[in-house]
Amino acid sequence: MQKLEHIGIAVKDLAVSIPLFEKLLNSPCNKTELVASEYVNTAFFQSGGSKIELLESSAPDGVIAKFIEKKGEGIHHIAFEVADIEAEMKRLKGEGFILLNETPKPGADNKLVCFLHPKNTNGVLIELCMEKK
Amino acid sequence: MQKLEHIGIAVKDLAVSIPLFEKLLNSPCNKTELVASEYVNTAFFQSGGSKIELLESSAPDGVIAKFIEKKGEGIHHIAFEVADIEAEMKRLKGEGFILLNETPKPGADNKLVCFLHPKNTNGVLIELCMEKK
Repeated sequence: MQKLEHIGIAVKDLAVSIPLFEKLLNSPCNKTELVASEYVNTAFFQSGGSKIELLESSAPDGVIAKFIEKKGEGIHHIAFEVADIEAEMKRLKGEGFILLNETPKPGADNKLVCFLHPKNTNGVLIELCMEKK
Repeated sequence: MQKLEHIGIAVKDLAVSIPLFEKLLNSPCNKTELVASEYVNTAFFQSGGSKIELLESSAPDGVIAKFIEKKGEGIHHIAFEVADIEAEMKRLKGEGFILLNETPKPGADNKLVCFLHPKNTNGVLIELCMEKK
């Protein structure tokens, strides 16, 4: 794992939460992007070498809508940048971690991503991400 | 806010979670520290320009023990480095955020810290931190 790339935060409404995080961080949102395959609207803020990613469900039964229904708004996942996602997935599987997708899938921000099951990571949903070539 | 300084993760037992995160991150824990005033044992991992901070309660009724009792292990807070903590506390209070401590208090890792109430931050417990001079 090369670095903490971003923290994903589940929010009900980007129209409320983007200005809120602009006030909090005292810096502007620098990108919004719909990831249709995951049913999320995302908004990014740069914070040093890492990013804050706000996640709003784009469908009533999307994964973020379900998360908020169960746990309320809050941190959804943390993501680490990796140099070679397939090699890292293999390494982590070998260490006993559970991959939630067996092949890398497209995420926001021009990334390939893989999630690890939180039951083996102290309750933290971990994303591996790698810039698409 | 200058950068995402660390993510704090509540764990039951550092003796279990330190080796787990060493495997996950593929890098060693580089510091442990007891913060007696907050009833927490901490363990730090570097990840790019940010850190992962594991938090274990050092008392049965400490804030981390209570958090785990209520919500289970998982992400407890995220911390942003600030250049002038008192100025930033004043700015955020003026923006309507609620400070959980009205004056900066000592935290782990040679920092002065202040927490913001999660009810105004999309359910995310936010820490401001500044290196002690």
